[in-house]
Amino acid sequence: MNEPETDQIETYDTAFELGDGAIAAVLEAVESGDKPRLLALLEPLHAADVADLLEQIGKTARRDFLNLWGNDLWGEVLSELSESLREEVIDYLPANTLAEALRDLESDDVVDLIEDLEVLQQNLLLDALEDADRVAVEQSLQYPELTAGRLMQRELVMAPTHWTVGQAIDLLRQETELPEQFYHVMIVDPKMRPVGKVPLSSLMASARDVELTSIMEDDFKTIPVLQSDEDVAYAFNQYHIVSAPVVDADGRLVGVITIDDAMEVLQQHAEEDVRRLAGVGDESFSDQVLATTWLRFPWLAVNLVTSIMASLVIAQFADTITAIVALAVLMPIVASMGGNAGTQSLTVAVRGIATKDLTRANVWRVIRREVLVGLLNGLIFAVVIGVVGLVWFDSVMLGVVLGLAMIANLLAAGLAGILIPIWLEKLNIDPALASGAFVTTVTDIVGFFSFLGLAALILL
Amino acid sequence: MNEPETDQIETYDTAFELGDGAIAAVLEAVESGDKPRLLALLEPLHAADVADLLEQIGKTARRDFLNLWGNDLWGEVLSELSESLREEVIDYLPANTLAEALRDLESDDVVDLIEDLEVLQQNLLLDALEDADRVAVEQSLQYPELTAGRLMQRELVMAPTHWTVGQAIDLLRQETELPEQFYHVMIVDPKMRPVGKVPLSSLMASARDVELTSIMEDDFKTIPVLQSDEDVAYAFNQYHIVSAPVVDADGRLVGVITIDDAMEVLQQHAEEDVRRLAGVGDESFSDQVLATTWLRFPWLAVNLVTSIMASLVIAQFADTITAIVALAVLMPIVASMGGNAGTQSLTVAVRGIATKDLTRANVWRVIRREVLVGLLNGLIFAVVIGVVGLVWFDSVMLGVVLGLAMIANLLAAGLAGILIPIWLEKLNIDPALASGAFVTTVTDIVGFFSFLGLAALILL
Repeated sequence: MNEPETDQIETYDTAFELGDGAIAAVLEAVESGDKPRLLALLEPLHAADVADLLEQIGKTARRDFLNLWGNDLWGEVLSELSESLREEVIDYLPANTLAEALRDLESDDVVDLIEDLEVLQQNLLLDALEDADRVAVEQSLQYPELTAGRLMQRELVMAPTHWTVGQAIDLLRQETELPEQFYHVMIVDPKMRPVGKVPLSSLMASARDVELTSIMEDDFKTIPVLQSDEDVAYAFNQYHIVSAPVVDADGRLVGVITIDDAMEVLQQHAEEDVRRLAGVGDESFSDQVLATTWLRFPWLAVNLVTSIMASLVIAQFADTITAIVALAVLMPIVASMGGNAGTQSLTVAVRGIATKDLTRANVWRVIRREVLVGLLNGLIFAVVIGVVGLVWFDSVMLGVVLGLAMIANLLAAGLAGILIPIWLEKLNIDPALASGAFVTTVTDIVGFFSFLGLAALILL
Repeated sequence: MNEPETDQIETYDTAFELGDGAIAAVLEAVESGDKPRLLALLEPLHAADVADLLEQIGKTARRDFLNLWGNDLWGEVLSELSESLREEVIDYLPANTLAEALRDLESDDVVDLIEDLEVLQQNLLLDALEDADRVAVEQSLQYPELTAGRLMQRELVMAPTHWTVGQAIDLLRQETELPEQFYHVMIVDPKMRPVGKVPLSSLMASARDVELTSIMEDDFKTIPVLQSDEDVAYAFNQYHIVSAPVVDADGRLVGVITIDDAMEVLQQHAEEDVRRLAGVGDESFSDQVLATTWLRFPWLAVNLVTSIMASLVIAQFADTITAIVALAVLMPIVASMGGNAGTQSLTVAVRGIATKDLTRANVWRVIRREVLVGLLNGLIFAVVIGVVGLVWFDSVMLGVVLGLAMIANLLAAGLAGILIPIWLEKLNIDPALASGAFVTTVTDIVGFFSFLGLAALILL
């Protein structure tokens, strides 16, 4: 009887990430051109960790690494690489190394690998595939990007409605090419339309003569092949689906999507939202300086325009500021509080839209809530900032102006923060992408205008 | 032979979310007190959709709904509810309704349901459970929050190393209480330590006399029971794990974690990061106005302090502003650009830390990149804003001051945006929570100080 090896019972430090030590050792092996040592170091690693390693080392080290690894490169490492690095690495690798690497991969991984590449690279990789694989990949690529058709695997296990458990098990035992992962046997009618699915655990737990239809789940979600991948991911998460049949326009079974693929999409979309809310595009740590600068430039450019608009508002009150310089000192406070409150509201709205928690059923209640929260926080901070203004500049009326402007701006922030994302969504513009600029423009302008305007009215 | 019913081949509109029509119909049934109609409307819905419905309607309608539903309430709906609403609903429901509802649930769902409740509510629910279930739940609750112990299910299927496929299948056929979902048979040695796992699909595809050890995967991750749930989720995502054995300090198998639970954790943490970056706590759309105001207050309070600090900087230059009012008009541009660039850098850093893409191996390269990106965007926007300043106020030197301040602030933004999250992480403070305030403080102060300071030096 085998004793479990100690490295199977891993502790926190080693179990779940690539250690710094591992990276240093690999770099050393690469530097000294010691291929046997490199292979020995890579052997215990998961392809995802090797991909991370490639992402975390510098460009020169990466090339030396790939040169030394040569034709021993694992195909899975390519499909685990981040998109920007994938292009770099595929560009760099010789054609025969690529062809070798692709042979390791399932067809849906190949699709995932090549769908974002440029046409030239795509053709290079397609040519490297064997005929049967190339046809399968090309078929998948015919579905539009970001749909269930791209996400599904074509390999699946199905059985007709009149079969028994025993017949299904015999099929599985005879079949030589089973999908790498599957959790259900899909039950189809003679027209190939799915009518139920039998979890493998039920199949195992039932006697051979039990009919499949008596143990199948018939209350299940069917995914249209053109459904957006984001909706597919939502459904898997919402309904705790493990695998689901994908059907064409006639309702015929054409593939299966499993939870791991759906969760990757969910994760990607959440990550995309974070980045878009913060004004960074699809950048990664392996991007070079110029690429990163370029990706961040548009957001900064938009912000420049909106902040110049705010300055135009301030310019209208130049005389007022010259008369009371305290206004220049205090005005950024009002604008900054509005910007923060607006960001709070818009983030809640953007994520609510993405997770389908903000719907027509509660939108009015949520708008009302945002306005009231803005008003309430406005009142609280009006008192605080009013006192600050009074104590600092010894002027009751300056405190009053500050307080009133604060209320106006936090109200505007709540209203803009909820309405702008909803309105962008209606216009089919990604609210995560564009809400920030609009909301900040509103809070800057309302903040400066209300504060300086009230000051001109009341204090001069 | 059954024809598939048309509602199984669903289209976009109805397949993946609760329609507005459904909500309206349910509200109508509730209003007219028509229980048979309510039950008929709920019947085709998934518990997760009913929970969403409860979250999206108003408080009064929710109470009427629960009153009408009464003891027919499904337990799963409780475990699908958002945390804040869960407390409200559990507080509202009569004890016997709760007891009925809990009987529907698996023990790990009960744990998930009650772990965040107050002690009083916890005890109420524990008392409602049957003895065996209560013991199981209490055992799980002994593990610290946010660990693998809380996440795992105790129900699992295991077999000793000397068993064959046939013996395992016979066990599964005899066992009356199998876990609701399982994907592997865990193979354990006589000391109960996991030595491999056999995917159900391999079990099905193998002949009865094949030994389990010959088809088991022995290269698998074992999860220590005290591992943080965030690390568990990372491992599932990174290594595409479907289910993994959980072991105690002696390496003995105590439970199993499956991908669906891990993915929920991953999703929750990503969502938490988005919200913390934007300065909103764990709020949900069903929170009332006061609760929401209170949750958002601390972030706004911190922002007030930091913006007052910025004002103190401006106050040092009151005379300069009085002499050249154009400075007051233009200074928010420099500060705002710095704030935006800083948010870009810190978001990339915070997510990089969370996804373990930012590590000791690439941290210096990333810091260098942030500085260079800051410098480069600083140079670009220095030219643009310099020209704006020149044209608007007809002063070359004002343009020069604006440009120099822009470069200084975008550099500071890049540096603070990357260093502050790393430094917070080292101090064990959640970088998503605190980075924003610190970085904005830096960019505000550097922005105002460099612009006004240079102006005082050069223009006066």
